Amino acid sequence: MTRIVVDWGSSNFRAYRFDSEGGISDRHQAEAGILTVRDGAFEDVLEREIGGWIDPDAEILLSGMITSRNGWVETPYLEPPATLQGLKEKALERRARSGARLLFLPGVCNRIPQPDVMRGEEIQVFGAALPDEDALIVLPGTHSKWVSVKRGAITRFSTFLTGEMFALLRQHSIVGRLIPTGASSERPQAFRAGVTFGFQGGGGGLLNDVFTVRAGALLGSFPPEDIAERLSGVLIGEEIRAGLASAAGAGRRPRLVGEAALVSRYRTAFEELGLPCDLGPDHAAVAGFRRLGLLGGKHG
Amino acid sequence: MTRIVVDWGSSNFRAYRFDSEGGISDRHQAEAGILTVRDGAFEDVLEREIGGWIDPDAEILLSGMITSRNGWVETPYLEPPATLQGLKEKALERRARSGARLLFLPGVCNRIPQPDVMRGEEIQVFGAALPDEDALIVLPGTHSKWVSVKRGAITRFSTFLTGEMFALLRQHSIVGRLIPTGASSERPQAFRAGVTFGFQGGGGGLLNDVFTVRAGALLGSFPPEDIAERLSGVLIGEEIRAGLASAAGAGRRPRLVGEAALVSRYRTAFEELGLPCDLGPDHAAVAGFRRLGLLGGKHG
Repeated sequence: MTRIVVDWGSSNFRAYRFDSEGGISDRHQAEAGILTVRDGAFEDVLEREIGGWIDPDAEILLSGMITSRNGWVETPYLEPPATLQGLKEKALERRARSGARLLFLPGVCNRIPQPDVMRGEEIQVFGAALPDEDALIVLPGTHSKWVSVKRGAITRFSTFLTGEMFALLRQHSIVGRLIPTGASSERPQAFRAGVTFGFQGGGGGLLNDVFTVRAGALLGSFPPEDIAERLSGVLIGEEIRAGLASAAGAGRRPRLVGEAALVSRYRTAFEELGLPCDLGPDHAAVAGFRRLGLLGGKHG
Repeated sequence: MTRIVVDWGSSNFRAYRFDSEGGISDRHQAEAGILTVRDGAFEDVLEREIGGWIDPDAEILLSGMITSRNGWVETPYLEPPATLQGLKEKALERRARSGARLLFLPGVCNRIPQPDVMRGEEIQVFGAALPDEDALIVLPGTHSKWVSVKRGAITRFSTFLTGEMFALLRQHSIVGRLIPTGASSERPQAFRAGVTFGFQGGGGGLLNDVFTVRAGALLGSFPPEDIAERLSGVLIGEEIRAGLASAAGAGRRPRLVGEAALVSRYRTAFEELGLPCDLGPDHAAVAGFRRLGLLGGKHG
């Protein structure tokens, strides 16, 4: 039987084909995220991208925003404690035109202490935490996730709008307006100073902290060339403070998982703060998919 | 002698003419903010808007973003403690083509505990606080200011990016994307719930709090029609918490000053939190300009 997993997000389409021993025999990536698909023609895109892999016996697992309201088949959210086995058991099954079985995986939600949701990141978490392990997995990004794992199950998590907030403030706000055109992102001291400031907090909370980045440049506390990196540092420092203080982070040592440049940036922030952190495996999503592909379950 | 004051901001041009007793004899407003002025033709705009008031003996005080780097004449910032008298003494004098004296007022800055700046709002503060009074003046807005006044002088202040942050998140972020088209802003319960949540904090800081507004709607904790007002409440609740905790706000009773609808919104927030606040005078800017116009000083 051919096993295929598809990580289909808003911007990207990533697919992996497994051999009979659970090794990855083929992989394919395209900028064919769900936002690029018109009139709900998801199956056409699937066939265009990986049609050559698909036979009537194939089982295709789909994860990510493809399972959201704006995707192909909307799946519910799995409540914590959420396991890889649970993800597969709660998958919604459809039949492809080719006869292949399509399994749309659920997302994971969290209602306590605050409502939160993820779709797709859970695969990275299951790839980064060992089965039955206790861990705190931190996935930096547009919407950073701090995910508490107990005995291999996701028990709670918090999302931080860090990356999106940085982009908003840089591109659209009065803080970003002072950034000189072509300012380099190689300002490590500015980043580190921002991290410390954001972590400690200036006493007026984040709405004030970000304004002080503008005011500090206007008053000559640092050059305008520092604004972008300082702002990035302030937001990441604030995320680390709040993440460690949150229920998801309490008392655990963060394990950073994700794209190398971003992980490196967060690692620098933890170092600057004198706080411990570990680096998770590269390609955590692939590891998670491999574990998922190897699983049995009601559809297995 | 004709005395004129001009409050010339990014978006608006507001001018007042005083009679010999210090009463306002004429006023004029236009959407002729500095962002609308091309090629630095500020004097042309001044003559177009209030040329009929100006004679060679006139004294024209200018305040607001017209005194910034992107304005007509850049003035320095006055350091605290900043008084109305100090503003006038530090004004930069130029001669208009008509022969009238132009006095460009400084802004006010603050370096402790965090760098902060204002240009124009100080006039409202001096209109809202009595001479020699101790007060905490709160000016809600795009960039809310919490201003501590001692014996009539501005001693320190903090700016919160509240209004701009709301606009950014509503228009450009993933949180705003769920807001139904045409959703009403008449959702007082959603606003009040947001204020309480933002004031108490969800345990994960503001970057998490704003994401929970999206997640709560996705999980059915409240309808999507509530998102905008809840988000507004979260940000204002956070501002009030941080403003009261800040050095500018410590131990004082806030006096709200500004545009009526916005003051009303903040008053509702204070009520919801069971916290005291006072309402400042309407037209605080006019009161401040009147006091300024009556002042003597080296140019008086």
